[in-house]
Amino acid sequence: MTMQPANLGRLYLVPAPLDFGCDELAPLDEVMPAGTLRVAARIQHWVCENAKTSRGYLKRINEIYPLTCALQALSITELPREVHKKGDHQGEFDAKHLLGPALAGHDMGLVSEAGMPAVADPGASVVKAAHDLGLQVVPLVGPVSLLLALASSGLNGQNFAFVGYLPTDATDRIKRLRELESLALKTGQTQQQS
Amino acid sequence: MTMQPANLGRLYLVPAPLDFGCDELAPLDEVMPAGTLRVAARIQHWVCENAKTSRGYLKRINEIYPLTCALQALSITELPREVHKKGDHQGEFDAKHLLGPALAGHDMGLVSEAGMPAVADPGASVVKAAHDLGLQVVPLVGPVSLLLALASSGLNGQNFAFVGYLPTDATDRIKRLRELESLALKTGQTQQQS
Repeated sequence: MTMQPANLGRLYLVPAPLDFGCDELAPLDEVMPAGTLRVAARIQHWVCENAKTSRGYLKRINEIYPLTCALQALSITELPREVHKKGDHQGEFDAKHLLGPALAGHDMGLVSEAGMPAVADPGASVVKAAHDLGLQVVPLVGPVSLLLALASSGLNGQNFAFVGYLPTDATDRIKRLRELESLALKTGQTQQQS
Repeated sequence: MTMQPANLGRLYLVPAPLDFGCDELAPLDEVMPAGTLRVAARIQHWVCENAKTSRGYLKRINEIYPLTCALQALSITELPREVHKKGDHQGEFDAKHLLGPALAGHDMGLVSEAGMPAVADPGASVVKAAHDLGLQVVPLVGPVSLLLALASSGLNGQNFAFVGYLPTDATDRIKRLRELESLALKTGQTQQQS
């Protein structure tokens, strides 16, 4: 977190529950802290992975903490398609233009379809842009699938790597798995894939 | 998670808030989901990093969700000192004997001083032992400092490594930092230290 002038909005990283696409949804306040839901309920400007999913999430929040502003009146901007496809984690995409509302003094929220934005999900470019613009970035507590899986694996949690998606091609995939296996055996570093 | 006979207890991984050692404590129900606190309030057998800290955490939970069993009557077992010092993440320590209550049908909790047990904290040996014994391992949602830091860094969150503590010796420390820098530049993998 960096300090910032009072006339700038903050960028909140808002985790989403992990039941995305499930038939049965968990009660939201069982898996999300009240602090996270309460902040989300008052944010009026969003950058997201998927607008439809985000609206669905905000509807669920509204049942517990009424939104400050009607759902229809919220500004919800999707990250562009190129970011979904190729990812935005290497700094290729300049997201500064998405943060106009924060420069105008409004708090903003970044949200992905499930879990923590910018971790194994799009959003890192937006966080980077916020830092470039001198905005305060505030991560909120919520579920993160890769962390829950790592903790419950019983594998080394003092030295681990998350390496994203494996290649889809069968030969490349086997080659990559062998590489990761050899790295794990040589270094003792847990290797986790998407 | 593995399915298990009904006569065995589960091992719950219970995250703790990150305000450990801070002068001002956050309201617990702002940063922890109700589901996590409610499960913790009914667990009577604990394995922990530090018994004093764990009692303090359970006292705070008791103010929101009364504990099923009086604090004085809980069984709270500390991981042995050797595990604190050298870590228990490489499978050196056999923790099976700590899981007796679960074998006798009682749910158990694993908790560290702050954040998620077994991730950048002791506990992996207990999780491994639970798997060896065929116990169901259930991770609960809560704050994890390294994840919050990673998400708000704006760095690559699709490929990252957590590498634990740096060497304390100045020369070794510089050497290790240069290694990690070169790895980050070569592979684009974010490198995060304790």
